[in-house]
Amino acid sequence: MLAEIKGLNEECGIFGIWGHEEAAQVTYYGLHSLQHRGQEGAGIVVSDGETLKGHKGLGLVTEVFSDGQLQQLNGAAAIGHVRYATAGGGGYENVQPLLFRSQSGSIALAHNGNLVNAAELKLRLEQQGSIFQTTSDTEVFAHLIRRSMAPTLKEQIKVALNYLEGAFAFLLLTETEMYIALDPQGFRPLSIGRLGNAYVVASETCAFDVVGAVYEREVEPGELIIINKHGIYAERYAEKRPRSICSMEYIYFARPDSNVDGINVHTARKNLGKRLALEAPVDADVVTGVPDSSISVAIGYAEVTGIPYELGLIKNRYVGRTFIQPSQALREQGVKMKLSPVRGVVAGKRVVMVDDSIVRGTTSRRIVNMLREAGAKEVHVRISSPPITHPCFYGIDTPTKEELIASAHSVEEMRQMIGADSLAFLSHEGLLEAIGRSANGSLFRGQCMACFTGEYPTNTCSQLLEQTVKQ
Amino acid sequence: MLAEIKGLNEECGIFGIWGHEEAAQVTYYGLHSLQHRGQEGAGIVVSDGETLKGHKGLGLVTEVFSDGQLQQLNGAAAIGHVRYATAGGGGYENVQPLLFRSQSGSIALAHNGNLVNAAELKLRLEQQGSIFQTTSDTEVFAHLIRRSMAPTLKEQIKVALNYLEGAFAFLLLTETEMYIALDPQGFRPLSIGRLGNAYVVASETCAFDVVGAVYEREVEPGELIIINKHGIYAERYAEKRPRSICSMEYIYFARPDSNVDGINVHTARKNLGKRLALEAPVDADVVTGVPDSSISVAIGYAEVTGIPYELGLIKNRYVGRTFIQPSQALREQGVKMKLSPVRGVVAGKRVVMVDDSIVRGTTSRRIVNMLREAGAKEVHVRISSPPITHPCFYGIDTPTKEELIASAHSVEEMRQMIGADSLAFLSHEGLLEAIGRSANGSLFRGQCMACFTGEYPTNTCSQLLEQTVKQ
Amino acid sequence: MLAEIKGLNEECGIFGIWGHEEAAQVTYYGLHSLQHRGQEGAGIVVSDGETLKGHKGLGLVTEVFSDGQLQQLNGAAAIGHVRYATAGGGGYENVQPLLFRSQSGSIALAHNGNLVNAAELKLRLEQQGSIFQTTSDTEVFAHLIRRSMAPTLKEQIKVALNYLEGAFAFLLLTETEMYIALDPQGFRPLSIGRLGNAYVVASETCAFDVVGAVYEREVEPGELIIINKHGIYAERYAEKRPRSICSMEYIYFARPDSNVDGINVHTARKNLGKRLALEAPVDADVVTGVPDSSISVAIGYAEVTGIPYELGLIKNRYVGRTFIQPSQALREQGVKMKLSPVRGVVAGKRVVMVDDSIVRGTTSRRIVNMLREAGAKEVHVRISSPPITHPCFYGIDTPTKEELIASAHSVEEMRQMIGADSLAFLSHEGLLEAIGRSANGSLFRGQCMACFTGEYPTNTCSQLLEQTVKQ
Amino acid sequence: MLAEIKGLNEECGIFGIWGHEEAAQVTYYGLHSLQHRGQEGAGIVVSDGETLKGHKGLGLVTEVFSDGQLQQLNGAAAIGHVRYATAGGGGYENVQPLLFRSQSGSIALAHNGNLVNAAELKLRLEQQGSIFQTTSDTEVFAHLIRRSMAPTLKEQIKVALNYLEGAFAFLLLTETEMYIALDPQGFRPLSIGRLGNAYVVASETCAFDVVGAVYEREVEPGELIIINKHGIYAERYAEKRPRSICSMEYIYFARPDSNVDGINVHTARKNLGKRLALEAPVDADVVTGVPDSSISVAIGYAEVTGIPYELGLIKNRYVGRTFIQPSQALREQGVKMKLSPVRGVVAGKRVVMVDDSIVRGTTSRRIVNMLREAGAKEVHVRISSPPITHPCFYGIDTPTKEELIASAHSVEEMRQMIGADSLAFLSHEGLLEAIGRSANGSLFRGQCMACFTGEYPTNTCSQLLEQTVKQ
Repeated sequence: MLAEIKGLNEECGIFGIWGHEEAAQVTYYGLHSLQHRGQEGAGIVVSDGETLKGHKGLGLVTEVFSDGQLQQLNGAAAIGHVRYATAGGGGYENVQPLLFRSQSGSIALAHNGNLVNAAELKLRLEQQGSIFQTTSDTEVFAHLIRRSMAPTLKEQIKVALNYLEGAFAFLLLTETEMYIALDPQGFRPLSIGRLGNAYVVASETCAFDVVGAVYEREVEPGELIIINKHGIYAERYAEKRPRSICSMEYIYFARPDSNVDGINVHTARKNLGKRLALEAPVDADVVTGVPDSSISVAIGYAEVTGIPYELGLIKNRYVGRTFIQPSQALREQGVKMKLSPVRGVVAGKRVVMVDDSIVRGTTSRRIVNMLREAGAKEVHVRISSPPITHPCFYGIDTPTKEELIASAHSVEEMRQMIGADSLAFLSHEGLLEAIGRSANGSLFRGQCMACFTGEYPTNTCSQLLEQTVKQ
Repeated sequence: MLAEIKGLNEECGIFGIWGHEEAAQVTYYGLHSLQHRGQEGAGIVVSDGETLKGHKGLGLVTEVFSDGQLQQLNGAAAIGHVRYATAGGGGYENVQPLLFRSQSGSIALAHNGNLVNAAELKLRLEQQGSIFQTTSDTEVFAHLIRRSMAPTLKEQIKVALNYLEGAFAFLLLTETEMYIALDPQGFRPLSIGRLGNAYVVASETCAFDVVGAVYEREVEPGELIIINKHGIYAERYAEKRPRSICSMEYIYFARPDSNVDGINVHTARKNLGKRLALEAPVDADVVTGVPDSSISVAIGYAEVTGIPYELGLIKNRYVGRTFIQPSQALREQGVKMKLSPVRGVVAGKRVVMVDDSIVRGTTSRRIVNMLREAGAKEVHVRISSPPITHPCFYGIDTPTKEELIASAHSVEEMRQMIGADSLAFLSHEGLLEAIGRSANGSLFRGQCMACFTGEYPTNTCSQLLEQTVKQ
Repeated sequence: MLAEIKGLNEECGIFGIWGHEEAAQVTYYGLHSLQHRGQEGAGIVVSDGETLKGHKGLGLVTEVFSDGQLQQLNGAAAIGHVRYATAGGGGYENVQPLLFRSQSGSIALAHNGNLVNAAELKLRLEQQGSIFQTTSDTEVFAHLIRRSMAPTLKEQIKVALNYLEGAFAFLLLTETEMYIALDPQGFRPLSIGRLGNAYVVASETCAFDVVGAVYEREVEPGELIIINKHGIYAERYAEKRPRSICSMEYIYFARPDSNVDGINVHTARKNLGKRLALEAPVDADVVTGVPDSSISVAIGYAEVTGIPYELGLIKNRYVGRTFIQPSQALREQGVKMKLSPVRGVVAGKRVVMVDDSIVRGTTSRRIVNMLREAGAKEVHVRISSPPITHPCFYGIDTPTKEELIASAHSVEEMRQMIGADSLAFLSHEGLLEAIGRSANGSLFRGQCMACFTGEYPTNTCSQLLEQTVKQ
Repeated sequence: MLAEIKGLNEECGIFGIWGHEEAAQVTYYGLHSLQHRGQEGAGIVVSDGETLKGHKGLGLVTEVFSDGQLQQLNGAAAIGHVRYATAGGGGYENVQPLLFRSQSGSIALAHNGNLVNAAELKLRLEQQGSIFQTTSDTEVFAHLIRRSMAPTLKEQIKVALNYLEGAFAFLLLTETEMYIALDPQGFRPLSIGRLGNAYVVASETCAFDVVGAVYEREVEPGELIIINKHGIYAERYAEKRPRSICSMEYIYFARPDSNVDGINVHTARKNLGKRLALEAPVDADVVTGVPDSSISVAIGYAEVTGIPYELGLIKNRYVGRTFIQPSQALREQGVKMKLSPVRGVVAGKRVVMVDDSIVRGTTSRRIVNMLREAGAKEVHVRISSPPITHPCFYGIDTPTKEELIASAHSVEEMRQMIGADSLAFLSHEGLLEAIGRSANGSLFRGQCMACFTGEYPTNTCSQLLEQTVKQ
C-alpha cells in the first residue's frame, strides 16, 4: 500500500493563474484541492506586474496561510505549490515556489517531478562557482537558466530545459510573464483551463472544478507555454515523443474526481476493480477497500462479483505533521494510527481486501493481521496493479530493488509473507486496458510502466539502477 | 444535510481510562478517534493519585497537544474531551475537561450532552452567590456538587445528578476516583471496555478499537459507576427508564466502525439505504452519497436497486478552523469549499443523491445545483431519515421550528424548493426497523425520535418549545 | 538587592480610564509605562456600555497584545493590569483583570496588593459551596461581592471591602460603572488624573505623563470612588486612618519619573543618597550604583561626597521570561546574566557600591565579588534603606524572618558575609527625613516601616509572623 | 539623536568561539550582551567537526532561541550574529549567519559592516550566472570565494577579501576551521579573547566579560586569522594601513562597559562631556542626558560645570518589534513612546540637555518641546559630537546629504529650528582628544571622521556621494 511507505504516499502539486484580480485567493483554493499530493509545505508567489511577492511555510495550506498573509499577496498572476515529505529534503528552504531575485528581474519556480540527472548537473554548476541554497533539484533549473548565454529569457529557459532529464512539470513566474513546461515524456499530469478571462493551470483537474474553472486541454509533452499581456503562446522545446504518464497517478495519487490525461480517475479505478474481479475472482462474503485510493476499485470488484461492498476499514483522518507517534509499548498493545478495522462488518466473514499496491509487504501484512484480529475468517488480498519490481526515478520515492518484495519473490511467497488466504495482482494488460489504453501501438501505450517492467522511458535510469543495485 | 448547518455538524466526545501507566497517551489516541464528534477544542486531565494536572486548547487534538505537553501529564488515570463548535459558547474557557480546585480536593469534568434546565439552575445558583467562569452548562453540575450538603462526594454527585434534566454523559475525575454517569434516558452513547487491567470508557466504541481495548458493555441510563483503587462499582442514582438514544447517532454523528448501543453504525446505515430503496425506488443511472455519513446508505440503496454506486461527490478534506472563507466574488465564480461534484461520473446521467437529512434546505438546494452544473440530467434526492419537524433540546443545535423547512412544507413543496426531480424521506417505521428496533414495546422503542415527531422524552422541553415558538 | 530575589523584584500595576474613545489603546500605553511593576502577564478589559470584552496573556504588554487584538477591544472605559511573577501563583488563569460574568451583569477586577486574610476567607467561602477558578486572592473579593445581600452593587462592594484586611488597590469595571478603592492604610500608591474629558487612574503617575494626562490627586485610604455616566463620586467605606504607604515604593519599586504620594521618586532617591553620604561617608575613588533603582541614590551620594559618579555596573537588558538559564558549568566559568562590572571603570579603584537593600545577602556578596574580580581595590557597600528584619505581608514576597540576613546578624557580621571592606545602612530617621516625612506626628509618619521595625499597621500580621516563625 | 533615526540606531554584532563544549550556549550569552547592536534578528551556526547546523530567526536573541533549539546545536565551534533593522533588507533570509552548503563543504558567514562596492560586485556576479538568495551584501563575499580559482579555501578567502571595499568584520565557519577577517582600515571593532582553552572573538569586549572570557588583543586591520585543530594562525591579506575606526562606536553604538580599540567607552564618553563643558559651558540648574548613550556624557559635563546631574528624561524600555504604534489622535494627545520627561526634576529649571548627535533635527526639536511642556524654563542643548555633514557608507544608515540638517545650516539656524535657548557641538579636535587620540600623526589619527568632515578613507565613496547628491 503506497500510502504507508514514508515518502511514497504523496507527490507534489502545482497550480497557476494569469489574469485574475484575486489570483492568490484562487491559488489558495486550487492548492487546497491538491493537498492530497503534498502535505509537508505550501507556498504562493504573485506578480502585480512590477514585483514578485511570496509566502510559504511548512504544513498544510490552511496552516501556512492566514487571511492577512493572503491579502498581502495582491496581483493578477500567481503560482503555487504543495510539497510532499521526503526523507532528506525537508525544511523551510525547500518549500516552493522558490524565488530567485536579481538585478535583471526575478523568477519564481514551482515544480512537480524529479530530475534524474540533478546531482550531476549540480556538481558541475558548483564546480563553476554556483551556490545552492536548497537541496531541491528545482534549483538546478534556475541556475541553468541564469547560466545560459541565450539573449532572451524564453530562449534561456529552452536551453535549460534541454539539459534536464526525468519527470518535470514546471510553472515559472516573472514580473511580466508565466511559463509552463512539461517534460518530453509527459510523466506528470498538467492541464490548462479557463476561469472567465483568466488562464489556469493545475496538476489535476479537480482544482478546476473547485475554483469554478473550465478544462481546456492537457499541456503536451515537450511543450513550453508562455502567457503574458499579449496572450498565450504554445511552443515546443523538444520533439514530440509518445507520452508515458505515470501509471501510479491512476492507481494511487490522483483524486477520484480528477481527469488525468483525459481519463476520469474514479472511473479508471472502478474499471481496475472490475478487471481484477474478472482476472482473480474469489468466493467471499464482503469486499472492502483500503481508503482512500482503493474504495473505487473495491466498488468495481463488488459490482462484478456480486459480493457486497462494505466499509471494513476506516481511515483515521487528521493525522498530520503534528501527530504524536505512540510509544513502542502502546504500539504493542494495539494502538492504531492510520487504519481501523470495522469489527461489526468483518467478524466471522470471508473478506476480500482490495489495495493499490504492495511495496515492502509490511503494511499488507499489518492490515491482514488487523482484519483477522477483528474476526475475519478468511482474508483474500487483491491488488489493483501488477507487482512492483523496479524502483522509480521519476518522483516516486520507492525503495531500492532489493527492498521491493516483488522483485525477488513469487506471488505465492508473497501470499505467505503477508499471511493472506489468497493473493492476486492485476496483469500488465489488465492495467492498461482497464484504464483505456488501446492495445496496439507503442511499447508503453501512453503510460510509464517502468516500476512494473523495468523498461525506463529515459536513458540515465538504467545506470542509476545499477548504482542502486551495487550499493 | 446536517454537516452543513453551523453547530449541527458535531457533538462532543469523551474518553476516560483508569489504571494505565500511559493514561494520557492512550486518551490522546482515544480522543483522536473521536475527533469527528468535535473539532473546536480538546483537553485531557490526569491524576497521579495526588494531584490533577491538565492541558487543553482550541483546535484539533493534534494541534492542542505537543509531545512535551503530553509527557508532562503523567498519572494512571485520565479523562479527555473533544468539543464541538457552538455559536455562543466558544472560547478557551469552555474547552473541557473543566478543572475545579478547592482546599478539600479537585474535580475535573468532561461532558457530552445538553442540560435542558441549565439556565434555570444557573440563575438560582447565581442568586445564591455562585460565580460561573464559563458559559458551559457543565459547570452547573460542579456547583451543584459543591453546594450539596451530603457527607461524601459520591452522595453529593448523586444529589447533583438528580437536579439535572436532559441529555448527559459525564466523566468526573478526582485525585483518587473516577465517576461515570449517564442520564436516565440514555440519550448519548457511552460504553465501557478493558485494556489489559485498565478500564476504559468512551462515547464511541471506535475508540476502543483504536487503542486496542476490548468492549465490555454499555453504561446504563441512570447508572453511576465508580472506579477507585478498590475496584469498579456500579450504582444507580435514578430508576431505570426505557432508553431513548438519539437517532442522529446512527444517521449522522457516529463513525461507521462504532457500535452504538450494540448496533454497528455502518451496517445500520446500509440498512437505512436498503429500506429507502424499498420505500422510494427510482429509475436512474448512478447512486451517489454525500460524504461521509451517507456513503454507507448509498451503498445499501445501490445494492437493492441494482443501480451502480459511484463517487459522484468528493469532500474536500482539511477544512478546519483555519480555513480562509472565499470572498463573495469568488463564491459567485463557483469556488467550492466542502464538496465537489465529479463531472466524469455524473455528466449526462440520472443521479440518485442520498443525504442524511434536510434541515433548512439550503444545502440540499446547493448540492442539487452543483450536480446539475456538472451535467446531471436528473437529480433524485433520497433522505435516510424522516422530515425534521421539531427542534432538539438534547445537544443538537437545530434551528427554531420556524426555520426547519419540514415543519411547514410538504414533501412536494420541499422538492420544488431544493430543485430536485424527485424527493423522498424514510418513514418513521423504516428508520426504526432498519436500525433494528423491534416493532412492539414502548413509544420510542429505544430511540429518541423527538425531532421527527415532537414527542420529547423529558418534560421541560414542551415549555422550551413554546418559548421558542413565541419569540 | 531586591531585584535579585525571586518574586521580590516586582509588584503589580493597574491602570484605568473612563470616557475616552480609544480607551483600550490608552490603557495599553499606560500599562506599558508600568511594565517595571510586573512582567509575567498583562490584560485589559473594556466596556462599550453594554458588554465587557477582555484580552490577557502571559508575557510583556507588547507580547500579549497585537494590533488586531487591541482593535477589537472597543469601548470608552477600560481597566488593565500588569502582573508580577510569584512562586506558586503563575499561570494564565491568574493573569488579571479577572472577568466574572453572570446573568445579572459582569464584573472585571484588577488588583495591586495582598490580602492578609485571603486564605481564611477563601476557606469559609468554599465551605459554603463557592468554586474558585484561580489561586489569586483577588477572586475572594469577587465572591464576597456576589455573596453580599446588600441591595445595590455599590453597597455590596462596600460590604465586601470591609471583610478585607491588608494592602489593596482595586479597579472594578461593570458594563456601566467603574469603581476605584484603596485599602484603609493606603499601602499602595494610586492616583487620579484627567485626559481631556476622560478620567484616568494609575498605580504610578509616570503613566499619566506617558499618555499625556494631567495629575489630579491621590486616591485616599479607605475611599471608594464611583464613575458612571452621571459623573465621578467619592465616598468612604472605612474611616480615615493615617496613611502607611510602602517605603519600598520609594526605595525600589516606582519609576524615578513617578510622584508617589506627591513626592518625586528620583528626587527622593537622590536625597536618600545625600543622607547616606552624611551618615556614612567613606574615602574612595568612584561611586557606582546598582541599576536601575540605585542610580539616583549613587548620584546623590557622589554629589555630597565629591567622589566622581561612574557607571561601574551595567545591567543586561532584555532578560525576560524566555531567557535561557546558563548551565552550572557555564555559571562556574563566569557567565553573567543580569549585571556586568565595567572593568575600565573599577580596576585599581576604591569603589563605593550603592544598593537599595540587602535581603538574603547572596546577591550583595556576588556583586562585591564581581567588582573585585574586575580589579576593584576596595569595595564599600552603602545601602539606601535600614536593615530588613521582618517579612512583609502586604504584597512584597520577602522570605521568612529566618532567611532575612539582617534579622539575626549585626552589620559587622553582614559585612564579613558579603565580603565588603565596609558596609553601612541608612537609619530609620534618615529614610523618613530624606523622603520628606516631617519628624513629628504618628508612629509611621505616613510610611509603612514594618519590614524594618516589625511594627505592622494591621492586626493579623503578628499572628502570621508567629506562624512563619514556628514552621 | 542617532537612536531615533530609523536604521541609524543600531549596527550588527558578531561573536565566535572555538574549542568549547558548550559553544552554542556561550554564543547565546555573547550575542545577548551584543543585543544593543541589533534587535531585528539573531542566529547561531555550530560545527561538530563534521557538519554545520544552524538556527536563526527574526526578533531578539531570547525570542529566537528556545532551550530545545539551543540544545540541538551541539559542537565545539560556533559563530553568531545579531542583526539591525534596515529599511530595504528585512526578512528572514537576510538574518545571519548565512549558511552555504555545497558538495565540497559548507560555509557559514557572519558579517558586521557595509561593503561600499557590493552592488557593483553583485551585478558582475549575476551577469556571470550567480543566483543570490538574499539582499545582504554578505552573500557577495560567499560568491567571490566560490568563484575563486585558488587551490585552497584560505587562498580563496584572501582573493575574495581583496575584491571588497568598505567596512567589514567577518567570521567564517566551515566544518573544520574558523576564519576571522577585518577590513584594511579597521572601521569596525573586533577583539579576540580566551575562555579557558577556547578562543573567543566578539564585536565588543563586553561579551567577554559576560561569558567570563579574558581579553587578548584587537584583530588588526587587514588581518586574516585562522583557527583549526592545529592552533591559531594570524596572516595578512592586505598591507597595514592606519586604522580608521568609526567614531560613532564611541559616541553612540558601543556599550559603556566595552573597550573599543583599547579605550573604555564610558570613560571616553565622560571625557566627551568634560570637554564639552570646557568648550561650551552654560549657566543652568540641572544637567540631563538622553538615555542611554548620553548618560555618561552628561555625568562628565556635570562634574566639570558643577551643575547637578539629574534624571530628567526616562527611556521607556521594552519597546521592541511588537510595540503597537499609537494612532495619530493619541499622538496628538501627547502619548509618548520612547522618552518621558521627569516633570519633578525639570519643572521651573534651566536645563542642559546632552545628546549624542543631531541628524535631521526632528528628534531634538521633539525632546526640547517635551522638556518645555514639562516646565523647563530654559533648554540648552549640548551635542557630544561635531555636526554631521556627510553621509556614511560604512554601515551607518544616514540619510542623504540634503537631509542632514548640519550640511546646509549654521549652528544658529539649527538652534532656532530645534527651539533651544542655546546649542553647541563638540569640536573635531575636542572629539579626538577626549577619546585619547594623540594630536600629531595622520589625518584621522585612528578614527574615521568622514561624517563630520567628508574625508572618506576609501576611494569609491566620493563617487557614491556624487550619485547621492545628484539624485
